[in-house]
Amino acid sequence: MQRYFSNIKEGNEYLLSNDDAYHIKKVMRMKIYDKIEIVDNKKVYLCEIISFEPVKAKVIKEINEIHDNKHQIIIVQSLVNENKMDLILQKGTELGMTSFYGYKAINSVVKENDKSDKKIIRWQKIVKEASEQSKRNDIPNIDGIIDIKGLCEVKADLKIILSVKEKSNTLKKVLQKNSMCDTMIIVIGPEGGFEDSEENKLIENGFIPTTLGNRVLRTETASIACLSMINYEWMV
Amino acid sequence: MQRYFSNIKEGNEYLLSNDDAYHIKKVMRMKIYDKIEIVDNKKVYLCEIISFEPVKAKVIKEINEIHDNKHQIIIVQSLVNENKMDLILQKGTELGMTSFYGYKAINSVVKENDKSDKKIIRWQKIVKEASEQSKRNDIPNIDGIIDIKGLCEVKADLKIILSVKEKSNTLKKVLQKNSMCDTMIIVIGPEGGFEDSEENKLIENGFIPTTLGNRVLRTETASIACLSMINYEWMV
Repeated sequence: MQRYFSNIKEGNEYLLSNDDAYHIKKVMRMKIYDKIEIVDNKKVYLCEIISFEPVKAKVIKEINEIHDNKHQIIIVQSLVNENKMDLILQKGTELGMTSFYGYKAINSVVKENDKSDKKIIRWQKIVKEASEQSKRNDIPNIDGIIDIKGLCEVKADLKIILSVKEKSNTLKKVLQKNSMCDTMIIVIGPEGGFEDSEENKLIENGFIPTTLGNRVLRTETASIACLSMINYEWMV
Repeated sequence: MQRYFSNIKEGNEYLLSNDDAYHIKKVMRMKIYDKIEIVDNKKVYLCEIISFEPVKAKVIKEINEIHDNKHQIIIVQSLVNENKMDLILQKGTELGMTSFYGYKAINSVVKENDKSDKKIIRWQKIVKEASEQSKRNDIPNIDGIIDIKGLCEVKADLKIILSVKEKSNTLKKVLQKNSMCDTMIIVIGPEGGFEDSEENKLIENGFIPTTLGNRVLRTETASIACLSMINYEWMV
């Protein structure tokens, strides 16, 4: 069943956002009384559509779902071009990231500029749609774009930097040594890799240089692969 | 250093393909005596460019590299649209797949048609470029497009089908039970999932229904995540 997020409630009726209303009317071509799921504050409700102008849906009942995000995974992705960033955000959402920062790495080809606000709105839209599509009951936080100073201030139990220089400290070793962590942050470098000074500063601030193995991975692949591997480590 | 594949050798000089020649001249803007790596039959040679019309490079010396593909991983991807297939082929190559089949699943939106030959040429080009970019010393085999009959005949030590119906038999359990396998085949369903009859026929033919966990993953994400997880299992 199609899932949408909303927190605009009057009595037991939800109002859908303009984007979701468009999706319901034009993409899904739904009718009055069609059923949808609405997620509000991590709770999932079975609802039926009761009007189209505007699109509203009435709660039928709450659906009990197991919440699976015991861990918080913060992805910090060095700024890359739009296509790659969209892919990282979509796949990252499917694979369970809970927060996301864009990072102004020294070697990022894409620089932050006046369009940052637009960029963040775009990112929020992508993770919301990916959350609906992948049936999450939460939406990853888009926490903005930070520089190295901001990055050093982010708090987490386990701080990982994916490093192409690191050869022996694999993600497997790091995760198995830190299995009790609640919050982890993973920093993924830009296409040219981190500058030495940048990597050293992060290491001084508690980030552990970590390798995903011998393969040469593009930055967007590293991001997706790392999240997949974390899911595997926690798999029973 | 930039890496290219070639097996056209005269004496100790390699002739580069038209696509690679274009890349060397127009994208990389290389000059005579610039160094490149050429891979021939899994051996890597340091070479220098000696002519542009046609593009030829002379071997300076062989480079010793560790061959990392002890295992054969055959990916069988149900036919999906071109963008998704391109992504699966590129990321699959980066993450170590060794062979690839397109699969005519019952629910595949994209059907095989007269353009199959063109499709396979396109796929071969993508995996060759991804192999060069990710510094592999081999190129995944594109083994064509098969139906369920062909699929049942492919031989492997471990045969996995990623199933949305399967809830308890995780990839982790399956890989850890079968750690000694040399060749594995992984079948990834189309967007609508496998038909029951199709999945049952594959199970009858030795495929093990396997889950990547509770998350709802798009077909292209499942393919990339599964390869990432296999890399993690083999990580030391």
